[in-house]
Amino acid sequence: MAVEQTLTLLVLDLVGCFVFAISGGLMAVRKELDIFGVIVLACVTGLGGGFLRDMAIGATPVAALSDWRYLVVPMAAGLLAFYFHPALGRLGPMINVFDALGLGLFVIAGAVKALDFGLSPLAAAVMGLATGVGGGVIRDVLAGQVPIILRRSVFYAIPAFAGAAIVAFGLFLTLPQPLVMAAAFAVCAGWRLLAMWQHWEAPLPRGSASV
Amino acid sequence: MAVEQTLTLLVLDLVGCFVFAISGGLMAVRKELDIFGVIVLACVTGLGGGFLRDMAIGATPVAALSDWRYLVVPMAAGLLAFYFHPALGRLGPMINVFDALGLGLFVIAGAVKALDFGLSPLAAAVMGLATGVGGGVIRDVLAGQVPIILRRSVFYAIPAFAGAAIVAFGLFLTLPQPLVMAAAFAVCAGWRLLAMWQHWEAPLPRGSASV
Amino acid sequence: MAVEQTLTLLVLDLVGCFVFAISGGLMAVRKELDIFGVIVLACVTGLGGGFLRDMAIGATPVAALSDWRYLVVPMAAGLLAFYFHPALGRLGPMINVFDALGLGLFVIAGAVKALDFGLSPLAAAVMGLATGVGGGVIRDVLAGQVPIILRRSVFYAIPAFAGAAIVAFGLFLTLPQPLVMAAAFAVCAGWRLLAMWQHWEAPLPRGSASV
Repeated sequence: MAVEQTLTLLVLDLVGCFVFAISGGLMAVRKELDIFGVIVLACVTGLGGGFLRDMAIGATPVAALSDWRYLVVPMAAGLLAFYFHPALGRLGPMINVFDALGLGLFVIAGAVKALDFGLSPLAAAVMGLATGVGGGVIRDVLAGQVPIILRRSVFYAIPAFAGAAIVAFGLFLTLPQPLVMAAAFAVCAGWRLLAMWQHWEAPLPRGSASV
Repeated sequence: MAVEQTLTLLVLDLVGCFVFAISGGLMAVRKELDIFGVIVLACVTGLGGGFLRDMAIGATPVAALSDWRYLVVPMAAGLLAFYFHPALGRLGPMINVFDALGLGLFVIAGAVKALDFGLSPLAAAVMGLATGVGGGVIRDVLAGQVPIILRRSVFYAIPAFAGAAIVAFGLFLTLPQPLVMAAAFAVCAGWRLLAMWQHWEAPLPRGSASV
Repeated sequence: MAVEQTLTLLVLDLVGCFVFAISGGLMAVRKELDIFGVIVLACVTGLGGGFLRDMAIGATPVAALSDWRYLVVPMAAGLLAFYFHPALGRLGPMINVFDALGLGLFVIAGAVKALDFGLSPLAAAVMGLATGVGGGVIRDVLAGQVPIILRRSVFYAIPAFAGAAIVAFGLFLTLPQPLVMAAAFAVCAGWRLLAMWQHWEAPLPRGSASV
């Protein structure tokens, strides 16, 4: 099983991990956890999606354990969230914005790595989605909330799956890699930010099964 | 490590995945999630147990990622649950009936695959149990409920473990495969359906540690 | 990938599994689950951390499935918790004391095994932490509680990480193994017991992000 972890993949993974860990750390601050709790929730949020992906495709030991940068980056993000959260102003919107950026980066990294491991484009798209939403799902479950992916799929799961599918099928069809990745990021993160901006305070309709 | 995934195993896995995904989709409908949330919860419920099993025994990439049918089947089940749930009448009982059928199929498939990977009969029985209850546990945790396996073990965990043990020890003793599987399914799904039918509204006794 | 599972590691793992499973079983008794629910929660708590570790480092089939003792020990612990919990008096403190002992044993076993698999000391320390807290996190999530690791990091996560780091870096520097392990256990379990004893009823400060 060939592992060709390109530099692009590494950088995407680390940046995505950082912004996701920030979102986990800010959630922990909002829940009034102490400094170590903030770091732990930051790390779990930043690394959870990649852990799930690597365990599922058999890329063990998982990447986060093979490279010290995957451990240091989310720890640093947790410290930043703990000490500088007052400067970030209102925490709720910030968590969601960081979450959107991390989502875009993670679905790309997840789909690329799954293709590298020989998965089909459909399976790679699903792994991209899992990489993108895994950390947030674990964050929400640990914080005692129903995961955002289940509550706000127009904001979250559909953009994530769209971005992952663009990468998986685009690279499978050997379209130009930078173009494919840029399109995927724009669709995933852009869609989500736009949806959040437009429907910021939109309540979920009660008594209806569709948004 | 020899993987001999028989056709029987594949069919059991796919049918179990379908009915489990239906149960997850109906739970999502009852929680008023939108269409994508329904599909995601259907997939997680249908694939979660097999994911856990394959990651634990080292069958990676996990089966659900190696065969597109494992991805398409639960997606279709989620769509069915979303569009046709009104025809299913009261949702609560339906979720439980589908759950019982999926449980019976999954414990068999899980125990068979674990034996194929060289695990002992006891370990294979435990993996059968994990395959059967894993998806439902993840479904309940994501939906914000204490897992049914912990609340209703006479309805759930004991029949599942009994079915898994029948398969694991029956095949280990080289008893006839169709007979062993039929007995396991009858015990697991039948026991559970019977228990549900008889004690449908039975409240859990308070102030007591035993049922 | 060389697996050299020493006898020391096996014994630590089994004893840690036993006391952790007791803590899970007592939690289940307190939640008024029936006998099978108690056994299941005991097994999940006793085996969850090791499952996570083995899946993450690629030690599959995971240890709990390769050795029947890993399955029988937590089942026996669950039975003990179910039948003898009245003799244990107040359940809350007992759960925490067993939890502290299991934590000390598990972080050591987890870090040692991760080093055996060639992980760096930092990654081994993280795996020791994950092994130690994984079962308790799963226990709390299944029981519908925010995990104790996030609520009481001074009691829990910091001692666990300190113990894991002592083992990981101590053995990496080829310090004497018994000395390193004794120091790690004393720091981890001792710190946690001391913190619990001193701040037994200490409420979490509200309106503050730091303890």
